[in-house]
Amino acid sequence: MDTPVQYRPLTPEELGARLSTVAAVTGRIGTDPDTWEVREVGDGNLNLVFIVEGPEGTVIVKQALPYVRLVGDSWPLPLYRAFFENHALVRQAARAPGSVPEVFHFDEDQALIVMEYLAPHKILRRKLIDGEKVEGLGAFLGEFCARTAFRGSELSMKSADKKKDVGLFAGNVEIPAITEALVFTDPYYDAEMNHHTEGLDPVVRELRANGVLKAKAQRLLMKFASNTETMVHGDLHSGSIMATGSDTRVIDPEFAQYGPLGFDLGMLIANFLMAYFSQPAHRGPESLDDYQEWILEVIAGTLSAFEAEFRQLWKTERTGMLYPAALFEDQGQSSDFARDTLLEEIRTDAFGFCGIEMHRRTLSLAHNADFEEIGDKTLKSRLEARNLIMGADLVLKAHSINTTEALLTLARQFNKKDVL
Amino acid sequence: MDTPVQYRPLTPEELGARLSTVAAVTGRIGTDPDTWEVREVGDGNLNLVFIVEGPEGTVIVKQALPYVRLVGDSWPLPLYRAFFENHALVRQAARAPGSVPEVFHFDEDQALIVMEYLAPHKILRRKLIDGEKVEGLGAFLGEFCARTAFRGSELSMKSADKKKDVGLFAGNVEIPAITEALVFTDPYYDAEMNHHTEGLDPVVRELRANGVLKAKAQRLLMKFASNTETMVHGDLHSGSIMATGSDTRVIDPEFAQYGPLGFDLGMLIANFLMAYFSQPAHRGPESLDDYQEWILEVIAGTLSAFEAEFRQLWKTERTGMLYPAALFEDQGQSSDFARDTLLEEIRTDAFGFCGIEMHRRTLSLAHNADFEEIGDKTLKSRLEARNLIMGADLVLKAHSINTTEALLTLARQFNKKDVL
Repeated sequence: MDTPVQYRPLTPEELGARLSTVAAVTGRIGTDPDTWEVREVGDGNLNLVFIVEGPEGTVIVKQALPYVRLVGDSWPLPLYRAFFENHALVRQAARAPGSVPEVFHFDEDQALIVMEYLAPHKILRRKLIDGEKVEGLGAFLGEFCARTAFRGSELSMKSADKKKDVGLFAGNVEIPAITEALVFTDPYYDAEMNHHTEGLDPVVRELRANGVLKAKAQRLLMKFASNTETMVHGDLHSGSIMATGSDTRVIDPEFAQYGPLGFDLGMLIANFLMAYFSQPAHRGPESLDDYQEWILEVIAGTLSAFEAEFRQLWKTERTGMLYPAALFEDQGQSSDFARDTLLEEIRTDAFGFCGIEMHRRTLSLAHNADFEEIGDKTLKSRLEARNLIMGADLVLKAHSINTTEALLTLARQFNKKDVL
Repeated sequence: MDTPVQYRPLTPEELGARLSTVAAVTGRIGTDPDTWEVREVGDGNLNLVFIVEGPEGTVIVKQALPYVRLVGDSWPLPLYRAFFENHALVRQAARAPGSVPEVFHFDEDQALIVMEYLAPHKILRRKLIDGEKVEGLGAFLGEFCARTAFRGSELSMKSADKKKDVGLFAGNVEIPAITEALVFTDPYYDAEMNHHTEGLDPVVRELRANGVLKAKAQRLLMKFASNTETMVHGDLHSGSIMATGSDTRVIDPEFAQYGPLGFDLGMLIANFLMAYFSQPAHRGPESLDDYQEWILEVIAGTLSAFEAEFRQLWKTERTGMLYPAALFEDQGQSSDFARDTLLEEIRTDAFGFCGIEMHRRTLSLAHNADFEEIGDKTLKSRLEARNLIMGADLVLKAHSINTTEALLTLARQFNKKDVL
């Protein structure tokens, strides 16, 4: 858990000298570091990120910092998360080929990953704020979630391999602890690092007074923390996705851990819903409806691609110990009921996690730009209130929101509803 | 995973020479092995068990075998399960003091545990077949399940300690694999090692044709295999319990693993229900009703002690990250709803696992003496059929069996019902 003695954070000035002996770098961008252009572009909270451009190509160099940048060096965070990020990227590349940046080099002592430079990709959250559409976005993300969920579970994996991997990832304690506290618990009481927009007080008071809501949130926390169904990305929001107009990739799985099959799906939908609710602050009336409806289409596309891909994998790759063909197809029986009830449970879980994520991004430590970039605080709190109330509905009624259409209808209703 | 080179199974003849240098043994029973009386008493499938009696005392020596005894040495089984058994005994002793035999010595290379000799305790299954009552049985077992479940979970433990322990137990792959296959899957198809009483064919056919039942059984398997709520005993049947007329202990946690909070409770109730259904073969009419009703009282007592103790621990030892007081009591709010819905879920899970255990003990590899000792095969299959059908009811309707009384009523109904 300690920082290795050799570890030293990179600077743009030193980077050339320190990486000029790494063949995975020089083989791709050129051997003379004097010809490299280095830009630090990290806008996250936990890492240094450099774009290193040489005469022959460009790579990304990502190095973990031993503390959370957002709050200075007062919150130490183990460097070993780079180790888990590397493991996660390798697994995601195998399970959902082409969906994540390729890893060229990993240096455990320096907590450093050299990986594929994505260009001209932009962070999806930026594009959503700017009103840019991405072709095939929902299909890509639904397939990514289905493939990583299914192929990382004992629906597909051999139990011995999966359990060994659970043991490996159990070594990661501090990173899940961040999610556990910031996502599931802090929003529901006056936690030290919380902050929220001033006008939200009445809504926040109501949420925190709701014992049923908090019981459900804690049940979801227990599900998140005590469940090893599959390896999840763990932080699949629109800031962990990069896209062009038609190509999408998933990045930054440093919060990867074993968790519920529906976790990533739920976090993702939450971030689309927050993009949706924030739109009135970013668009004029000429494009608002169209773009908001496009976001809902992306949600629908994600859910339907998830289910279609899950069904396909169920049919073709169900090679693990769970729901074996021996019990169903080999006895001339359909496993459709088993598959569909499992899919229903995954969706219910996802909607619950979705609601929690909508709360924590407005009430806990790490807010998102969709709302944070809204200058008009009255408008901001009005839109955030819609988001908060729909989040509560999802946590409380996930079981009874049985279709994608029901989810979208709910979003449209709250989009017109002012609770403040 | 390999057998250590030093490992050699004990024989009664060699035992004295090999243990005479172990202070934990000689300090308790006397230093001269020539004065020891050694009896091999193992009636299990996986281990050698010796009672070693010296002039000053008696100890139990349990040594794991590298294969499953029941099927000869054709089914290799790693010796490291003794390592996990030792770890489990130590944790259970801390969490439920006085409930398990004390460990005096553990030798990892020899997969050997020297522990407290329980006398005049008998295996509970034997007592149930013989019609002997045990005072305070339900209360003891309910408390054992509640204490080990609660204190081994993140309701109580610090997350870092619990996750480290999950990592440790993730090293155990082959043992959970036995439960996964034999308990959850084999009963529901014509698996190689299965056997069942001849007359049961129509019932078995019906169970195996029920796609909903199999879907639910597999969902419970996923819950068992992908859930780390707490450290469970993993094999808590009446053969893993020893008792006198008034003192009870739990033994043999070599199947310990992380699993659902309600797992042990469900397995235990299943074994009492099987004892209940088998009684007409073991008792005359003069004592049948009385003893059967006593077994149901034990089930009721187990469930009510479990809930009472869980509530007590919730109130006094809720020191983990789950359902923290910060969200409830510290805000002047009750956590009763949260606790009661969690208890309901635990009970539902338990009833589901209970039904599965009732099936596998009549259909899969390892049957239990309650039914196996019935010589009259027609009677045997008639009683086993009641057990099977009630098991199916539990798996299918666990959600709607909301009270202990509903469970007992169901048992009484099936006890009078002939399906063959």
